Amino acid sequence: MTGSLDTTKLRLALLCAAVATSFLPAGAHAAASGESIALEGIAAAAPACATCHGRNGEGGGDGLYPRLAGLPAAYLRRELALFRDGVRKNPLMMPMAKGLTDADIAAVAEYFSAKSVPFPPAPPADSSVLERGQVLVTVGAWERGIPPCRDCHGPALQGVPPDIPGLAGQWQQYLVAQLESYRSAARSSDALGLMRRVARGLTDSDMHAVAAYIANLRPDTLPTPPRPAVLEPYTPRAQSADSFVPPPDAAIPAGPFGDLVRLGQNIFQDTPRYATDFVGNTLSCRNCHLDRGRAAESAPMWAAYVHYPEYRKKDNLVNTLQLRIQGCFRYSQNGTAPPADHQVLTALVSYLYWMSAGLPVGIKPKSANYPPLPDPKLAPSRERGAAVYAASCALCHGEDGQGRSSGGKTVFPALWGPQSFNWGAGMHQLDKAAAFIRRNMPLGAGGMLTDQEAWDVAAYMNSHPRPQDPRFTRDVETTRELYHRGHDYDLYGREVDGQVLGAPAPGSQ
Amino acid sequence: MTGSLDTTKLRLALLCAAVATSFLPAGAHAAASGESIALEGIAAAAPACATCHGRNGEGGGDGLYPRLAGLPAAYLRRELALFRDGVRKNPLMMPMAKGLTDADIAAVAEYFSAKSVPFPPAPPADSSVLERGQVLVTVGAWERGIPPCRDCHGPALQGVPPDIPGLAGQWQQYLVAQLESYRSAARSSDALGLMRRVARGLTDSDMHAVAAYIANLRPDTLPTPPRPAVLEPYTPRAQSADSFVPPPDAAIPAGPFGDLVRLGQNIFQDTPRYATDFVGNTLSCRNCHLDRGRAAESAPMWAAYVHYPEYRKKDNLVNTLQLRIQGCFRYSQNGTAPPADHQVLTALVSYLYWMSAGLPVGIKPKSANYPPLPDPKLAPSRERGAAVYAASCALCHGEDGQGRSSGGKTVFPALWGPQSFNWGAGMHQLDKAAAFIRRNMPLGAGGMLTDQEAWDVAAYMNSHPRPQDPRFTRDVETTRELYHRGHDYDLYGREVDGQVLGAPAPGSQ
Repeated sequence: MTGSLDTTKLRLALLCAAVATSFLPAGAHAAASGESIALEGIAAAAPACATCHGRNGEGGGDGLYPRLAGLPAAYLRRELALFRDGVRKNPLMMPMAKGLTDADIAAVAEYFSAKSVPFPPAPPADSSVLERGQVLVTVGAWERGIPPCRDCHGPALQGVPPDIPGLAGQWQQYLVAQLESYRSAARSSDALGLMRRVARGLTDSDMHAVAAYIANLRPDTLPTPPRPAVLEPYTPRAQSADSFVPPPDAAIPAGPFGDLVRLGQNIFQDTPRYATDFVGNTLSCRNCHLDRGRAAESAPMWAAYVHYPEYRKKDNLVNTLQLRIQGCFRYSQNGTAPPADHQVLTALVSYLYWMSAGLPVGIKPKSANYPPLPDPKLAPSRERGAAVYAASCALCHGEDGQGRSSGGKTVFPALWGPQSFNWGAGMHQLDKAAAFIRRNMPLGAGGMLTDQEAWDVAAYMNSHPRPQDPRFTRDVETTRELYHRGHDYDLYGREVDGQVLGAPAPGSQ
Repeated sequence: MTGSLDTTKLRLALLCAAVATSFLPAGAHAAASGESIALEGIAAAAPACATCHGRNGEGGGDGLYPRLAGLPAAYLRRELALFRDGVRKNPLMMPMAKGLTDADIAAVAEYFSAKSVPFPPAPPADSSVLERGQVLVTVGAWERGIPPCRDCHGPALQGVPPDIPGLAGQWQQYLVAQLESYRSAARSSDALGLMRRVARGLTDSDMHAVAAYIANLRPDTLPTPPRPAVLEPYTPRAQSADSFVPPPDAAIPAGPFGDLVRLGQNIFQDTPRYATDFVGNTLSCRNCHLDRGRAAESAPMWAAYVHYPEYRKKDNLVNTLQLRIQGCFRYSQNGTAPPADHQVLTALVSYLYWMSAGLPVGIKPKSANYPPLPDPKLAPSRERGAAVYAASCALCHGEDGQGRSSGGKTVFPALWGPQSFNWGAGMHQLDKAAAFIRRNMPLGAGGMLTDQEAWDVAAYMNSHPRPQDPRFTRDVETTRELYHRGHDYDLYGREVDGQVLGAPAPGSQ
């Protein structure tokens, strides 16, 4: 056992080689014994890291050394291992990490992850710079392929365990340096290349702005989109759906109409919070309609607005826009339809109307649906899909498909199970799901999967249980016949692993 | 008394001069005495007229001589007097009518008006000709200033007593001849010149088509707009509101959406019939929005569609289109708002949506409101307005303002009183009413009145009692303060002839 401790000491000495002064606390040896060694070892190792990162992981060097406190342990493990293995290249960290065992790494990660320290002082910044950063953090710049930081790093940028680090409390200089490294691909170990994609879309001043804004966040503040004091003058002009640019948020007018549009946008972005009574899961409108419903390839709301009322086979009714949205609540959000004149619907309709300014009524844009996929070359396979899922989806949606949350807020939606859309939602149809995934997933990196991968992973997603179709009638066969007929790739009522999908649990009816 | 009979006989002899054979029935003299002379006289006179018009006023000469049976007595009186006085010029009728007293004319008119005879045989006609006529009769050609025949002559073209003759049962040749005469102004005694205006917009083949269609109508058939067997191909294209042309009715598609659009149009055109539960008077949407809601100068529905949801001061709410239309039911139609997802509203919204195809969303067309009138030079005067009303409005709306109906169907709406819009309707505001009247009244002859006349007649109309404002609160002063403030020309709560307009009858509250 003492040999083990000696080894740790040796490694700690190596860890310290790169820094001018290294010290070991007196108690480090005495207390170490048995199973406690890892944690004790880390108590010892901490000061080595502490020289740069601070004793509690607060970071230092005015941001030359990042804050580590509170970062997800899994993230810290991964990054340390990448330094150790020479994948993430850094002249200071590579030698530091070189001799670490997996257990050492786990202990160090655990140590810093558990720490909570004050944020560094807010650096000075112009309000215009902060506002620009605020936009990138909360709204993004989807037209350049940039989702808002908070969509992945959590609503308070507090990180989304296990894999996504928090940004809040981080040093401005470090944030800029990392963005630059992603952009130049000097740092190229980011999962799925997501951060390199984002960084490639950012200018130097974007990077400065976003880092300044984040470094100015205080603990527990939730970034929200800026509401400019001066309204952007905006006169809608007639536009074609083929090249439609919806109005900027800054054009939402003052007064009761603008207030309702803003409420509609809030409902759209965080439906469980703003339409609590009508939502039965953790999904929001934005989960299927990216960029606040604006993204042309995820069935944008401006393309929807202009073609209702429309007859729908689904319910054999002419759907007003209200009725159509009621369907989203009933199926996609596995909830209850708000009454037709409820403020929730009026706000959403107002938001969609506002967004559509300039588009011609009654001409259904191509983008009203997800861009259709050609039929798959191979029949969609949930086995192949499982591999796609593990490689490209589990990072955000979790290996169990239950999504991820942070600080009690859903960040990534559940793809199956009780918190996901039910068997009546459009997304349970493979063609719709595959079309959506192909163009839009992973978030901010749509287009990464092949057509076949999209079909396969859709089959994987939709071969799991989910809430019952609210139109359920008598039994799953009858319900399939009534509502799921004619969709070859609709898995409702089909047997998977000896279980009939959508079949009620025995005794539940 | 016998002298009187002799004079009648003399006149009858003169009346007969123009026809080859004249005869007096044996009983005509013997029965005549005292007050019955006029009617007896007419029994005698009838054969004189009968030579051409038939014993029962069925007309003849294959339409050279018009059918008189069942025409409104007042109309017959007026026309006979015009022949007599040389105003309506006709080489056969002027000498016939020359010696007639007012009493003779009244008796003759009464006689034929009371007759009911079969329609003449339907003349042969091509179906395309009939369909063209059907459109003119039921839809009109507003773009050429031509309202549909049925809007004035009654839904079955049965005439609208006292002043408007029926057309159903009339001979084709006679109808064509009259239209030609109106067009050339050979017949120029039409009230307000309305028929001359209409006829000037008709081509020869229009006249032929409309006459053929009417002559092919059978008793008690209600003309309805044609529904073409073959759908007109129609692809909506982006259009500007400044020169917007809504799609033709023939472009209403087949299927459930088209069916609902058609229902919406029916509700729009005959609201008491198609939305019975929600209408408290005899008004229809079309009364304030001409040409099925399409006419650019009467706040067309396509201009409305594209600017809702919109905040309205009236109810201090953002109004969806549904809520806006609910307001029409509550105020203009003095009824009850249909629930927000009621088929009546969905049908109307669908109709409006369909009509707006190609217009940009969110750009409020100038024509969304009635073209505004400049402030009046003289304060609007109900006394001057009364004269305008008598000259230009009473013909259709009645001297008592209660409108006119025919065959149990409202043809011209009541302008005040229990069957009119209530004190909460927009039309009770003088500026709105004057603006509407100026451009749209008399029907098919908008522009005939001066600005001042429009203001004056609006003041006259709105200085009469009408149903209470449904927002009535406590008393008329409070209600005026709450809902009618700031409208200088809003007469609600103002004293007229010692009566406070809108004040509840004593004891009614």
